[in-house]
Amino acid sequence: MSYVKQLACITCGQTFPADTPLFTCPSCGIEDGVLDVQYDYDAVARVMPPHEARASGLRSMWRYLPLLPIEQPALLPPLSVGWTPLYNSASLAGALGVKSLYIKDEGRNPTASFKDRASAVGVVKAKEAGATRIACASTGNAASSLAGFAAAAALPATIFVPERAPEAKVAQLLVYGAQVFSVEGSYDEAWELCQKASAAFGWYNRNCAVNPYLIEGKKTVSLELVEQIIEQYDGRFPDWIAVSVGDGCTIAGVWKGLVEMHILGFLPKLPKLLGVQADGCQPFCRAFATDGKLTPASADTLADSIAVGYPRNFQKALRAVRQSGGAFIAVTDQAILDALCYTARTAAVFSEPAGAACIAGVRAAVASGIIGQDAIAAVLSTGNGLKDTKSAILAAGEPTRIPPRLSAVSHREGAKTDV
Amino acid sequence: MSYVKQLACITCGQTFPADTPLFTCPSCGIEDGVLDVQYDYDAVARVMPPHEARASGLRSMWRYLPLLPIEQPALLPPLSVGWTPLYNSASLAGALGVKSLYIKDEGRNPTASFKDRASAVGVVKAKEAGATRIACASTGNAASSLAGFAAAAALPATIFVPERAPEAKVAQLLVYGAQVFSVEGSYDEAWELCQKASAAFGWYNRNCAVNPYLIEGKKTVSLELVEQIIEQYDGRFPDWIAVSVGDGCTIAGVWKGLVEMHILGFLPKLPKLLGVQADGCQPFCRAFATDGKLTPASADTLADSIAVGYPRNFQKALRAVRQSGGAFIAVTDQAILDALCYTARTAAVFSEPAGAACIAGVRAAVASGIIGQDAIAAVLSTGNGLKDTKSAILAAGEPTRIPPRLSAVSHREGAKTDV
Repeated sequence: MSYVKQLACITCGQTFPADTPLFTCPSCGIEDGVLDVQYDYDAVARVMPPHEARASGLRSMWRYLPLLPIEQPALLPPLSVGWTPLYNSASLAGALGVKSLYIKDEGRNPTASFKDRASAVGVVKAKEAGATRIACASTGNAASSLAGFAAAAALPATIFVPERAPEAKVAQLLVYGAQVFSVEGSYDEAWELCQKASAAFGWYNRNCAVNPYLIEGKKTVSLELVEQIIEQYDGRFPDWIAVSVGDGCTIAGVWKGLVEMHILGFLPKLPKLLGVQADGCQPFCRAFATDGKLTPASADTLADSIAVGYPRNFQKALRAVRQSGGAFIAVTDQAILDALCYTARTAAVFSEPAGAACIAGVRAAVASGIIGQDAIAAVLSTGNGLKDTKSAILAAGEPTRIPPRLSAVSHREGAKTDV
Repeated sequence: MSYVKQLACITCGQTFPADTPLFTCPSCGIEDGVLDVQYDYDAVARVMPPHEARASGLRSMWRYLPLLPIEQPALLPPLSVGWTPLYNSASLAGALGVKSLYIKDEGRNPTASFKDRASAVGVVKAKEAGATRIACASTGNAASSLAGFAAAAALPATIFVPERAPEAKVAQLLVYGAQVFSVEGSYDEAWELCQKASAAFGWYNRNCAVNPYLIEGKKTVSLELVEQIIEQYDGRFPDWIAVSVGDGCTIAGVWKGLVEMHILGFLPKLPKLLGVQADGCQPFCRAFATDGKLTPASADTLADSIAVGYPRNFQKALRAVRQSGGAFIAVTDQAILDALCYTARTAAVFSEPAGAACIAGVRAAVASGIIGQDAIAAVLSTGNGLKDTKSAILAAGEPTRIPPRLSAVSHREGAKTDV
């Protein structure tokens, strides 16, 4: 039994029972009618009292079972997901110009990205619904994460990728045993085909844009962050949390987790959210600075995981940043590559470009006066740098070529500064 | 203060005080005179009693501080290393033909490989020795791991790579901020140059072949394995532990950890070790089957992390396998690629080829009657598959190409078996 009270449409507020088979509100449609899972927080508070927050019990995202929409815990996949390390790095704080800096290394999840939190919930909900196959359309971390968790749950998976999908990412899907369709067409065509095929064959659709349960997995990163700061850092909570933004589901999930920890008494004051986008793809920044309306944008950035010109969780994300009193900011690809390097060299966390973008965003926000120099900030490194070694090569430069003689080393020794 | 009693030469037995600056025995030389760190196990037993093994305390390799040669715990790097997940996978056991199968996912370490356990100790010992720079020669996981931990410890690092080192691995080193010399010559020339430069400039040499402390980090994988089996699996210990073998230091470390847990009363009976090599590079298999003498071999396998024709820890590794009553076995590259796939599809652990080799070894050992079908086996997946996506592509095959039409999906749906 879960503590889910009901689901509610984020636009019209209409509620649906906890066991509704619906994903979206029939009145508001697939674009605006995303449903939000709501809990009986009084009951949750009785089993999760804040004074017992001492990181006892399970060290995975499943320690937050009372705040998850799981009806049958026996179906949880065996992979160890969540409870990723949270570091406080004085040298990274120095590089960014803030007083103190937390970095949560989500690349330490089973398939090396934050998306594992969503996929872990997705495969359980699919099995609870009696599905015999789970599907998604993606070429990125959502797909590889789904493939990994489907393997762990012994649930067949079908993944639709556009024909231009990078070979290495497709290989990861195939290694985990997913059925992979390379669709002769664009990403949008692959996405539409996945929707149609899921409907036609009764497959479970793992897609954060339409599925209300996946964000519940994503929010666990905030639940952990709050508990880890209580346990490891004497409750010195951040003033700002920076999150890279693509379709908007991640930052909306981060916000939901923070709000819940506030309701439950773990977190005394809500931080502000900094939504970070790439210069070449910034529909949120544009909307935030103007009328709050979505104008689909081009998607020209090497941070592929946030190259989303038409964000599917636009309203939820924009609302989260506004409620927090935060801001959106855009950074150049070069600033992202720089952040990838100085984060590895100071905090020893190797991020993929989309994970480094939010770090570059903090530096930019300090420079422009949005974040004060006396602020405590937190960033989420959402994916492991090994996911995109091409960008790492772009960022890191070349080795020094020498003949195999000691004189060649001594000639250079001491001339190099390492960070 | 540590519990180190002394260091002893593994060949002549001569002992040296705990604070000796020596790495190898002056009488036996660099090849045979590797030193072994010895502890006061009675004193360790008083602070690490087996009946308190309930995985309380730190969940990292530092929980075993009484069994590590660390004099100044204040110098421990902040990265969260060790306490990697241990899974029991019935479906992988089925694929291998054994009764029960444990897999420890070492790819979940900070730089995505088992070598982090050694590097973590290496940077502490370097700082304790007052070194201002740490060095190694390698193109593989030892190098990227050292680069990551040197960054975490704010200790400058110099790494010598042969000119043919793969671009992606060199990029990882540079991202972490190491000084990287690309040596115009072979790996052996890079190795010799590193030795000379370390001696000439007083750099600390992180090299398992000559440095007695790194194996102490490696052994922690066994300490964890034993405690995790007590905690998670009711003490159902394995009959066999399979380890992929390159220079021999890893399997020697695994054995040392097991022996220590036996001495301390955690592990009632020592398992047998299965040393696994690639068909194209099997000096240990040859020596084990014949006179026990090392004949340098060629190194022709795609499992680059164990492609070591001249193993630097030959005696220690051979002795460990013999003492355990175990065996060596060789597997083909195709068997390694097969293991990479079926491990990802059953246990949802994505390994690099060298990590999958030991898994292929268990299957081969069952087929040849070395391991019985009623045996409990354990394997170490020593590195994340993202370290070598080229091999993953070789292993995983191609996606199914279709036009963006539902009829193209329905035509194929159901025809595919996923595992």
